[in-house]
Amino acid sequence: MYRNKQLHSTTVSILLAVSGLLMATTAFTAGSAPHQSLDHSIVSAEIENTAILLRERALLDNLSVDIVESLTTEVGPRRIGTPGDKRAIAWAQDKFRQLGFDRVWIEEVDLDRGWIRGDAKAAIVSPYPHNIVLTALGYSVGTEGDLVGEIVEFKTLDDLEAVPEGDSLRGKIAFVSYSMRDYEPLPGESNMAGYGKGTRARGRGHVIAAKRGAAALLIRSVGTDTNRYAHTGSGYGYVDGVEKIPAAAISPPDAILIQNMLRRGKPVTLKMNLTSKITGPTRSANIIGEITGREGSDEYLVLGAHIDSWDEGTGAIDDGAGVGSMMAAAALIAQMEQRPRRSIRVLLFAGEEIGFYGIRSYIERHKNDVHEHIMGAEVDGGGGRIHTLTSGVGKNALPVVREIYKLIAPLGIEWSDANDAKGASDMSVLGKAGMPALDFAQNPNDYFDYHHTPNDTFDKIVPEDMRYLTAAYATFFYVAAELDVDFRR
Amino acid sequence: MYRNKQLHSTTVSILLAVSGLLMATTAFTAGSAPHQSLDHSIVSAEIENTAILLRERALLDNLSVDIVESLTTEVGPRRIGTPGDKRAIAWAQDKFRQLGFDRVWIEEVDLDRGWIRGDAKAAIVSPYPHNIVLTALGYSVGTEGDLVGEIVEFKTLDDLEAVPEGDSLRGKIAFVSYSMRDYEPLPGESNMAGYGKGTRARGRGHVIAAKRGAAALLIRSVGTDTNRYAHTGSGYGYVDGVEKIPAAAISPPDAILIQNMLRRGKPVTLKMNLTSKITGPTRSANIIGEITGREGSDEYLVLGAHIDSWDEGTGAIDDGAGVGSMMAAAALIAQMEQRPRRSIRVLLFAGEEIGFYGIRSYIERHKNDVHEHIMGAEVDGGGGRIHTLTSGVGKNALPVVREIYKLIAPLGIEWSDANDAKGASDMSVLGKAGMPALDFAQNPNDYFDYHHTPNDTFDKIVPEDMRYLTAAYATFFYVAAELDVDFRR
Repeated sequence: MYRNKQLHSTTVSILLAVSGLLMATTAFTAGSAPHQSLDHSIVSAEIENTAILLRERALLDNLSVDIVESLTTEVGPRRIGTPGDKRAIAWAQDKFRQLGFDRVWIEEVDLDRGWIRGDAKAAIVSPYPHNIVLTALGYSVGTEGDLVGEIVEFKTLDDLEAVPEGDSLRGKIAFVSYSMRDYEPLPGESNMAGYGKGTRARGRGHVIAAKRGAAALLIRSVGTDTNRYAHTGSGYGYVDGVEKIPAAAISPPDAILIQNMLRRGKPVTLKMNLTSKITGPTRSANIIGEITGREGSDEYLVLGAHIDSWDEGTGAIDDGAGVGSMMAAAALIAQMEQRPRRSIRVLLFAGEEIGFYGIRSYIERHKNDVHEHIMGAEVDGGGGRIHTLTSGVGKNALPVVREIYKLIAPLGIEWSDANDAKGASDMSVLGKAGMPALDFAQNPNDYFDYHHTPNDTFDKIVPEDMRYLTAAYATFFYVAAELDVDFRR
Repeated sequence: MYRNKQLHSTTVSILLAVSGLLMATTAFTAGSAPHQSLDHSIVSAEIENTAILLRERALLDNLSVDIVESLTTEVGPRRIGTPGDKRAIAWAQDKFRQLGFDRVWIEEVDLDRGWIRGDAKAAIVSPYPHNIVLTALGYSVGTEGDLVGEIVEFKTLDDLEAVPEGDSLRGKIAFVSYSMRDYEPLPGESNMAGYGKGTRARGRGHVIAAKRGAAALLIRSVGTDTNRYAHTGSGYGYVDGVEKIPAAAISPPDAILIQNMLRRGKPVTLKMNLTSKITGPTRSANIIGEITGREGSDEYLVLGAHIDSWDEGTGAIDDGAGVGSMMAAAALIAQMEQRPRRSIRVLLFAGEEIGFYGIRSYIERHKNDVHEHIMGAEVDGGGGRIHTLTSGVGKNALPVVREIYKLIAPLGIEWSDANDAKGASDMSVLGKAGMPALDFAQNPNDYFDYHHTPNDTFDKIVPEDMRYLTAAYATFFYVAAELDVDFRR
């Protein structure tokens, strides 16, 4: 139930009228359906009205955007284990407290390895001299001085893998030129298929190339843009018994340039120099902020995002947008006169980018209280609006979730009947461990143009979209926290 | 008159039918007018038919794009005085010869100064550490080690100029945050007004800042994008008696970041290090290719572009597009069975980017034969389609130009009655010296997103637009070369 001390009944009427107006605007803006009537035996009229007010207030509130601005300005890049990561952990605790969260704490995360990015330089030596824009893939070794080799192109990772193991690429630089931008999903494939194919080469390419004698791996950046940035990202690590070779991504225009040179039939020789270095164990933390439920704290809904980012941009869309929308959604609920029935926790995970370090540590620590996690969702796809909600809940709970959904449908959100959600990104680990989950699928906007590049900066956030995103989470999770439902059943 | 040895009358009929079909497509694509009837007392039916065939063939011919690909791949960056510039001069002569030009030569251009770009690094030291993407403005001095100073923001160059001369900015870094992207032209201002305001700060800011004691000048990059590149460009040079301070442009996201920091009311301190250096005299060349007219070479139409580029991208849109379209337009005319009545020269100018060095040398050398230049035009605004033709010719010649225009109207080109054209870029110097000129105004596409950045690369060329651009020039200049008209009168 939502009561604001400043609100009298007249004010409520005015606000409801305004909210009706806003809903019309909302429906117009999002091209979506108008208000749907609720079954008041599932969601009471009081909760419904309060939820509508919350939603409309959230649509006018820039808090989620302000949080991203704060994180990207005051902290900036925050790759796990770096000074930026430490600043981010302090920042997040301060921000939770400023926003009125009831409990704030960290849970330490141990890392078996650290990494220094160093510098990355490359140039075509012949047939035509050119500087090449490239970036080391995460946890790549360096080149130990200049590495000079002839480039051998493979259109896909499969083509590279088709070369027999042994010495055939000895001294050569294997170049996988696969372009996510140009990939068209096959019938039945998801829109993410193009990214998945790219991350295969990013993750395993260096091992496959090394087994064939290659001196280094280059990939065309995994992204949808043609800007002259390289997209970094995580490899799956080195394998014992296989030579550790350097791995780097080059910008799309440089990939095209090299392909155009190769088309002329002359050998293309590259000189590259990476000063990257794998270092010893280090430490980070998951940061948790709780809005404690008025009926106690032993059950909680969880809203996830990851606090770490890659290190060349300021991590605005990946995943400042998640941090901003999740913190703001819970904070907007905390601004209400009373706490909802059950608790809401915002979980900011460490080290998502390098392989789910934070969530893996979290689940180890919380393996005996997964059942306390009533339901969860994560934002890790930028600040775009939600287009579809898919639940992953028990059969009895499904009509309840369907009913709550009606309150966010006017934000332009469709309903999917699949009920097979496991939760996005980190949260999928909890989903697979049995936690009921929700997938709020978002418009990607230009996510894969920017992510993992120096160009992932605050100006790429679209404020209106962030407000829509935040309003959906605040509204949905307020109602879910208010109802006494077991979402598992 | 156009006759191809391979063409028989049946083929001609088929081609004319195809060309009719293409014209319909053209009109549809460009949303423009259909074929306009010509006055055959001005342009004969034979010339008209030949011109239509040439136009339709040009629309299907990728030569202009292939030339840009060749220049950007085989040469790349080619700032005047650099090894790339020397390679470009050799490349251009070879390319003219390969394309069947009748005469090819160079005319040397002396420069009073050279410049080494060196490296450019910067970081915010406090209150929040951040790397800043910046680039030295052309012919800036270096910082001689790290330069550390507090940033003082000025929204415009006028605001900086309003500070009294003297010591008020002693030790500070003056930062002009003017944003071309956000500038809306006032009534009566051209679309280029926003660029002009930016280039004022880029050109004179360092002198104005130095007179107030500043240690360095920073500007927000002059461009329409928010990518994390700095746009370089030319300053107007140093002034005797005023301290020579370093001048650099920062990327739009970094400008926004600094503004957001300053908004917090704390001093913002920057460390910057430029290793740029002004060097001694050097030499370059204008490159000229001629299609010699069948009635001799003492009068010629001129098609201009500049061969030099800035040094961080590969100069595809600025001005590879001009080089490609002008070379290809003349080459397509050269593929005809016989030469047009009068000559066509393609002039590739040196050193446009640093202040019209090539054309100034050219006009000094050719001051006594400006009258031999029958009419000229230049492409220096990227590879977009032409939307408006403005002539700058004599009163008697105007109806002739208007008649020739009808042949390119189906490419989506409007006619302007102003008749005040002086020619674009380098060519304006010849226009002001009395040469009849044409302005073919182009769609900018994303020109100011990319120009003067590392992101000006071949993939930014839109092949279909380049074919439209080239077809217009080939058609217009073929007919103009075929007619015996004095465009001055």
